[in-house]
Amino acid sequence: MPHAPLEFYFDFSSPYSYLAAQTIDALAGEHDRRVTWRPIMIGAIFKHTGAQPLMDVPLKGAYARHDLARSARRLDVPFTMPAKFPLIALNAARGFYWLEAHDAAAAKRFAHAVYRAYWGEGRTVETPEQVAAIADNIGLDGAALAAAVTEPAIKERLRHATEAARAAGVFGVPTVIVAGEPFWGYDRFADLRAWLEHGGW
Amino acid sequence: MPHAPLEFYFDFSSPYSYLAAQTIDALAGEHDRRVTWRPIMIGAIFKHTGAQPLMDVPLKGAYARHDLARSARRLDVPFTMPAKFPLIALNAARGFYWLEAHDAAAAKRFAHAVYRAYWGEGRTVETPEQVAAIADNIGLDGAALAAAVTEPAIKERLRHATEAARAAGVFGVPTVIVAGEPFWGYDRFADLRAWLEHGGW
Repeated sequence: MPHAPLEFYFDFSSPYSYLAAQTIDALAGEHDRRVTWRPIMIGAIFKHTGAQPLMDVPLKGAYARHDLARSARRLDVPFTMPAKFPLIALNAARGFYWLEAHDAAAAKRFAHAVYRAYWGEGRTVETPEQVAAIADNIGLDGAALAAAVTEPAIKERLRHATEAARAAGVFGVPTVIVAGEPFWGYDRFADLRAWLEHGGW
Repeated sequence: MPHAPLEFYFDFSSPYSYLAAQTIDALAGEHDRRVTWRPIMIGAIFKHTGAQPLMDVPLKGAYARHDLARSARRLDVPFTMPAKFPLIALNAARGFYWLEAHDAAAAKRFAHAVYRAYWGEGRTVETPEQVAAIADNIGLDGAALAAAVTEPAIKERLRHATEAARAAGVFGVPTVIVAGEPFWGYDRFADLRAWLEHGGW
């Protein structure tokens, strides 16, 4: 029987999700696992739980900016606090699901490109046109993607993904769930790795 | 010039502080550093920041219980969710400072014994008598400690320590500050270790 995949729940507007996205596939690959990428709208879940966006919390938000820059240096990936924050990641997430329906690998490449633009370079990626430009840059059909993200079926797809995440117990991002075992936070990747190595502990 | 010490801010009522307390001295020792233990009343800081105690947050609290038990297994230390929670850690923290004024090593042994009783065994350690019993068990003068924790000077000592922590930017526990660099959370110990190894990065 093949190993259960890693379900990777993230939001494009979450900087710790950006860090997680850099390593999740390699980590899974080391343990003969695949990763199912699941962009969600964490803000919709926060409305249910009453949680505050990290960056808005007094003192904690300032610390998070420091910690993010430090974590990115340690991981050796670019990090730029976006001029416009928070990002409305709706169209990027919808675009991901539209691509994924045809080509999961293309969807992942698109996700990496969105992340690189937004958290690596601090650019604003919100409108269908901005999201389309990202797709064009990596050789995908930006015009088709810009049209697709306004379709009711794609909007519903993202709503459904967010609801399914909430039903699975996701209250923050990034969260990885593997065979029912939840790991919340990029800072749990060492635990996740150990869990995969030992099959739980 | 000797290396700057690690300032270890914690609250006896914080389970992640309990995990941090298990390894902080060994981690510092590997890098020729000393640790200054600083119990504080994190609840007093939460009153300023509006933060919610972790265990009270919907979904997050349930996850934290799961994560704590898992982290304790990984660290191979006992963990028992206390029947009475949260703990009012006022007298334990006061007792620590009273001991520390005479004998810093005794204060650390006391802190470990309080933690072991509370988070290792799930026992209630709140009243001066309960705190005194912990001290007696490790060969310290419990009666003297029980008397000391009601003295105005010791109460003021703890208030001052908590205010100093807030002034230093502490908004959650455990937090370690070394040479001005803050690390919030037991899950930043790998980062702290790397920072000590490389002198920042």
